[in-house]
Amino acid sequence: MIVVIQCADRVGLVASISGLLASENLNIVSMNEHVDKGENLFFMRLEIDKLSDSKALEQKLRALLPDGALVNVNPKPEKKVIVMVTKEYHCLADILVRNHFKTLGASVQCVIGNYVTLEDICKRFDVPFYHVKYEPSEEPEQQVLDIVSRYEYDYIVLAKFMRVLSPAFVSRFPGRIINIHHSFLPAFAGANPYRQAYERGVKLIGATAHFVTDELDEGPIISQQIIPAGHSFTAGDMMKAGQEIETAVLAKALRLVFDDRVFIYKNKTVVLE
Amino acid sequence: MIVVIQCADRVGLVASISGLLASENLNIVSMNEHVDKGENLFFMRLEIDKLSDSKALEQKLRALLPDGALVNVNPKPEKKVIVMVTKEYHCLADILVRNHFKTLGASVQCVIGNYVTLEDICKRFDVPFYHVKYEPSEEPEQQVLDIVSRYEYDYIVLAKFMRVLSPAFVSRFPGRIINIHHSFLPAFAGANPYRQAYERGVKLIGATAHFVTDELDEGPIISQQIIPAGHSFTAGDMMKAGQEIETAVLAKALRLVFDDRVFIYKNKTVVLE
Amino acid sequence: MIVVIQCADRVGLVASISGLLASENLNIVSMNEHVDKGENLFFMRLEIDKLSDSKALEQKLRALLPDGALVNVNPKPEKKVIVMVTKEYHCLADILVRNHFKTLGASVQCVIGNYVTLEDICKRFDVPFYHVKYEPSEEPEQQVLDIVSRYEYDYIVLAKFMRVLSPAFVSRFPGRIINIHHSFLPAFAGANPYRQAYERGVKLIGATAHFVTDELDEGPIISQQIIPAGHSFTAGDMMKAGQEIETAVLAKALRLVFDDRVFIYKNKTVVLE
Amino acid sequence: MIVVIQCADRVGLVASISGLLASENLNIVSMNEHVDKGENLFFMRLEIDKLSDSKALEQKLRALLPDGALVNVNPKPEKKVIVMVTKEYHCLADILVRNHFKTLGASVQCVIGNYVTLEDICKRFDVPFYHVKYEPSEEPEQQVLDIVSRYEYDYIVLAKFMRVLSPAFVSRFPGRIINIHHSFLPAFAGANPYRQAYERGVKLIGATAHFVTDELDEGPIISQQIIPAGHSFTAGDMMKAGQEIETAVLAKALRLVFDDRVFIYKNKTVVLE
Repeated sequence: MIVVIQCADRVGLVASISGLLASENLNIVSMNEHVDKGENLFFMRLEIDKLSDSKALEQKLRALLPDGALVNVNPKPEKKVIVMVTKEYHCLADILVRNHFKTLGASVQCVIGNYVTLEDICKRFDVPFYHVKYEPSEEPEQQVLDIVSRYEYDYIVLAKFMRVLSPAFVSRFPGRIINIHHSFLPAFAGANPYRQAYERGVKLIGATAHFVTDELDEGPIISQQIIPAGHSFTAGDMMKAGQEIETAVLAKALRLVFDDRVFIYKNKTVVLE
Repeated sequence: MIVVIQCADRVGLVASISGLLASENLNIVSMNEHVDKGENLFFMRLEIDKLSDSKALEQKLRALLPDGALVNVNPKPEKKVIVMVTKEYHCLADILVRNHFKTLGASVQCVIGNYVTLEDICKRFDVPFYHVKYEPSEEPEQQVLDIVSRYEYDYIVLAKFMRVLSPAFVSRFPGRIINIHHSFLPAFAGANPYRQAYERGVKLIGATAHFVTDELDEGPIISQQIIPAGHSFTAGDMMKAGQEIETAVLAKALRLVFDDRVFIYKNKTVVLE
Repeated sequence: MIVVIQCADRVGLVASISGLLASENLNIVSMNEHVDKGENLFFMRLEIDKLSDSKALEQKLRALLPDGALVNVNPKPEKKVIVMVTKEYHCLADILVRNHFKTLGASVQCVIGNYVTLEDICKRFDVPFYHVKYEPSEEPEQQVLDIVSRYEYDYIVLAKFMRVLSPAFVSRFPGRIINIHHSFLPAFAGANPYRQAYERGVKLIGATAHFVTDELDEGPIISQQIIPAGHSFTAGDMMKAGQEIETAVLAKALRLVFDDRVFIYKNKTVVLE
Repeated sequence: MIVVIQCADRVGLVASISGLLASENLNIVSMNEHVDKGENLFFMRLEIDKLSDSKALEQKLRALLPDGALVNVNPKPEKKVIVMVTKEYHCLADILVRNHFKTLGASVQCVIGNYVTLEDICKRFDVPFYHVKYEPSEEPEQQVLDIVSRYEYDYIVLAKFMRVLSPAFVSRFPGRIINIHHSFLPAFAGANPYRQAYERGVKLIGATAHFVTDELDEGPIISQQIIPAGHSFTAGDMMKAGQEIETAVLAKALRLVFDDRVFIYKNKTVVLE
């Protein structure tokens, strides 16, 4: 059983929490915590070796903790997700494979694409695919909202979805949309990052998984990684090499989020591994 | 103030420890713990935001903890070390520079070399250097023991000391001798690891910092790192490239040890960062 | 058009080769070469910007080069491969996805498994799957030989095939069987490398793609990579983390081999990227 | 003997160059080349196994090559450098140590600092140190010019020199000033990159070695590297961790430049390793 806590910091929090668990005869298997001293914020993730009455324990924890504490006892072990894509297959295929073999830590409810390119791979894995044409006259975001409204879901994953979502859309899903951006943010935000990286002559290229907020490519970063890219790389070579780490970085970010290890505050994340 | 604890695991340890600290009005700045479930062992490192009576707190902690607990409250913030070298300068120079600028986390008492090659660099940093000829007739280990007996020291650092220490010597300093081995152990233990790596045609070469035990290159590993080494690397190129990571890996391992983050058990370490 | 050359080294080879190409009016787009001075061997890979008469050019090159030169002008741009698996899906699924989207640089002819576990994923991608029971009475290697004899193929890829192939089997396919081993060879050859790595307390774990020879896990290494694995990793965690790099390392090795960039000599490879 | 060539590309260049060398009975030990097709530029670095008449060979090569070719036969094996610093010791100490042990590939002529902090370490290595107060009334850049005019030098290395050089100053040394910037450029150019990185919540921090041009932190990149930096890193921790890679990245960039492996064009470099 997992317990996650995010609240104002104060002296004795660990003692209160671990004391309560001991009095409930709950054994802590692992405990990770972080304090942001500048912001006076406390974050904790606990693994407990048996199940307990979640609601009751949540109430007892809230009674112990500062006002406004976020407490989640025994969050859903398997999240539900909707994936949005354009034409590139690499991130989606990786997600579909893990989903199929039950190692994603989430179940994919459906895939929405602004092209039909990736419909076939979804069908091969028995995952519903919806095509939404991204033309203004089609009111595509309304169509997306209509589709997602038919499903239960915890997160929307943008697996190389190459359209910018409107602030109105994003604001409906705070902390619930995860994007993979094909650069080492904040370098090369916006369009054509590999072209930008090529023009600048960088020696490493990167990928960044982050939560989506109103500001394009400015949301809280979950995970980043880089690979070498020398002078012999064309912008196309950078794209190909980059796709390998995009896949890896998104997979890692999803694992962390689905495993209840990622906390959001300000424009940052705490990742308790 | 740092507190480190290593003991048998049991339910409620975190609650007992954090409860005691709260009752003493000591605020936990950071807490790292690890449980090895297979071995039923508990490891913890705490940072507390003010000094307290170390002896009294140690006694109270021991009273709380299972029998045989290792407890160290407020360990020396600056360790004292003796360094042993042969001819290669890179690790020693890095240690001397950090020592000079007070960023090593330890103070170097003296350097012992089985060649005089590195005497000059020691003199430039006002660090005593002793030359011990490694010929059997000279009983070199006895000479080393005589030298170290004149100093206070917490650790002996083998900064590319290319002689094998006898089990009799090693057994005098359990968990107190740190070595840098120029390979990714357990690959290429023993002599000439770069030659071995070259012959084997590996694509990465590594370095390993570890505590020294009776068995050559078999002691608990503290830190490891690798770098790429393609077909164009001669054994000599591997050695040169390897020296860069040897320096970095030893520096990192020393920082971790001097910062009281490394716990030894069985033939392993727990590193609480 | 690609040209690959492997021969004894001598003065003027580059001039002879590039002179011939210039006289044939063939423009060099990229040229990579390596000389192993100890072995007096010369390796070269050229990209030429148009097609030419392969046979004629091969003959002219051979006439220029030392006796016994290996020359291959315009090797097959798309290799054919047979994949062997056991139960783990990660490497196979990655290969099937790339095969499906035509980015593998090879086409998968069929998959042979010693369990039926992975039959379903093959069917989803319309790739034939054969089940060969690995019991001595079944003479499994003879069954494998019968199956592969029905196909054209350039390489056999062991994508986590967990049985040891007999020397008699291996000797039929010199330089044509590629394996992914789940450790940083030569550390932890043989069975259960993650268990071995866990017991040894290493701080990094690795994966190695190599050609298969008679000696288990001793063949020429194509590619290797590592990831951090701290004290908190159980042997199971190491396995999970390791699977991510196994997939990546095998994918990279296959790309290099299928792109005619890997040369074998002695027990090593030259990789001309 | 090294030969470096940078010129317009055309068919047959490799044949002409290697043919000339063969006719001069010069054996090529290693050859690296790159063609930027978009810019139609050819870059080559050769190692030849004996010395020859440099001037004569340069003339013969120029006669073969397109107009305006840059050709350098047998460039100085040991460059001369002047180092500029502020207060941080890590990059300077690394350079002084390598200089002292003759592994820098260059000899340090003197060090200029805008504080006296690092005078002592220079004295310990018998390297002249000059203090230039960076106050407008002191006309510091004129003082620097006066000092450097007393020395022969090939490069000026900014080893954590924390003042911005004027365009007038920079324009006197095109392609000859090398800087280490403490971020993964183009992210976090300008002042306080670790503070910026901390505020942005990045998960990796980087360092970039580059040639200095008029535009701050916008010159051609030579080398970059990154290290992980999680949520637990304060801006101060990022700075400490960053210093380790600043040292390593600058050391690598200097090795590449001093070894005549770095070519500048547009705002980029080609690095022939």
